[in-house]
Amino acid sequence: MKFARFQLNTDGSILQAVLREQTLYVTEGDIWGKWNYKGPSYNLNEVTLLAPFVPNSIIGVGKNYIASGESKPEKLPDIPVFFYKPVSSVIGPEADIVIPAGAKEIKFESELAVIIGKQARHVSEQDALDYVFGYTITNDITASQFFHPDGHWMVGKSFDTFTPLGPVIETELDLTQVRVQAQHNGQRKQDSGLDLMILSIPFLIAYLSRVMTLQPGDVILSGSPAGADFMGASELIECQIDGIGILRNSTVLASH
Amino acid sequence: MKFARFQLNTDGSILQAVLREQTLYVTEGDIWGKWNYKGPSYNLNEVTLLAPFVPNSIIGVGKNYIASGESKPEKLPDIPVFFYKPVSSVIGPEADIVIPAGAKEIKFESELAVIIGKQARHVSEQDALDYVFGYTITNDITASQFFHPDGHWMVGKSFDTFTPLGPVIETELDLTQVRVQAQHNGQRKQDSGLDLMILSIPFLIAYLSRVMTLQPGDVILSGSPAGADFMGASELIECQIDGIGILRNSTVLASH
Repeated sequence: MKFARFQLNTDGSILQAVLREQTLYVTEGDIWGKWNYKGPSYNLNEVTLLAPFVPNSIIGVGKNYIASGESKPEKLPDIPVFFYKPVSSVIGPEADIVIPAGAKEIKFESELAVIIGKQARHVSEQDALDYVFGYTITNDITASQFFHPDGHWMVGKSFDTFTPLGPVIETELDLTQVRVQAQHNGQRKQDSGLDLMILSIPFLIAYLSRVMTLQPGDVILSGSPAGADFMGASELIECQIDGIGILRNSTVLASH
Repeated sequence: MKFARFQLNTDGSILQAVLREQTLYVTEGDIWGKWNYKGPSYNLNEVTLLAPFVPNSIIGVGKNYIASGESKPEKLPDIPVFFYKPVSSVIGPEADIVIPAGAKEIKFESELAVIIGKQARHVSEQDALDYVFGYTITNDITASQFFHPDGHWMVGKSFDTFTPLGPVIETELDLTQVRVQAQHNGQRKQDSGLDLMILSIPFLIAYLSRVMTLQPGDVILSGSPAGADFMGASELIECQIDGIGILRNSTVLASH
């Protein structure tokens, strides 16, 4: 099932919906809990899609894919490279990515985003996927020139518009078939299956749940495959995962 | 004016209030926007105080005080040591700090917490304090053994109960008079004025607002003075800022 959020082009109101084919069936209530159809319905092309949910915490993981042909590390890290991004950095499909004034070497990274649907604390890897509500796509944008020399990524990951999410949440996704792809101005730059992930999605959920109580609406950006690249102004990034869709955003330069 | 949140010991319901002397006057509405008195009122000692607000983003800053007698760095850092803590780590006054199983060298850090009340983007240092709703106290608890060797602090800062906040929000605080203090099992360990801060509160707000749109409910943990120390199980930490109050929490060992 596909969940979406959108804004009406007529009066600007923000609605949530289930998407079937090209039709958005408006719902009300808590998508993590009790919701129901409310009507009316809209055609996809008469609305503006937004990020499909408002995240609670956004948790990223760095360095989580090997390149094709590389071998995985023999030992998993005791402490993964986790980081947070702020909710203020979220934008939806088709919204502009704003390149900060004076920034250079801004990178796009297409990633599978794993959305937690139930409170999770001390869950096992075996049970971990039971806590997943669904999946969407993210473009985890990074300005590494703003990384602190001691390794703190906070500033470089936090700029407004640096976390496109969407286009929809897909609740049924066959992870064995997923390919995480990106096209940069139409040219394929990323294309990997999840078999190249170092820390699996169940591992990430189980690990995090031993540290913190994961909440409905928390989202784990599960890392980016080889091929992520730098982007300039007036460029088009399409992050694609078949089964979910294409998250398409263009870049613009900040005015100040 | 002092704002508080609390739970009724009778039926467990959660309420917000304005505190005057020992009396909590219940309010309704959005404390960042439109709210009004709703009644009834309660005596402080018949309720359980909670963290005085539910944060949006929690932003910490590391290494932000010199010790008394030290001199400040001649040049401010281009990129401060900023980090995030998750909302799931927040507890209120008197709630237990849970020391994770197998953890050692858990540190308490008493800090002035600066609560944003209005959306802030590209604000100047001169105007920055206009965006502050008020101040509370935090104990920024840290398990540095879980810091990633490459400098990512995420895991070591994120455990449940690692961000006590409270006891109340004070909207009128004379920053020139603030002393950030901590008592560890009754013994004074921290005691500094804000004159020993490296990055001032207006600097922090202005800097962050050039990166991201600060939102009402965002809170900046403004750094911890010299004297923060390690704590074991069954110990008492009292973080104190006169004018706000005392944030008192005891430690317990996790059961698993």
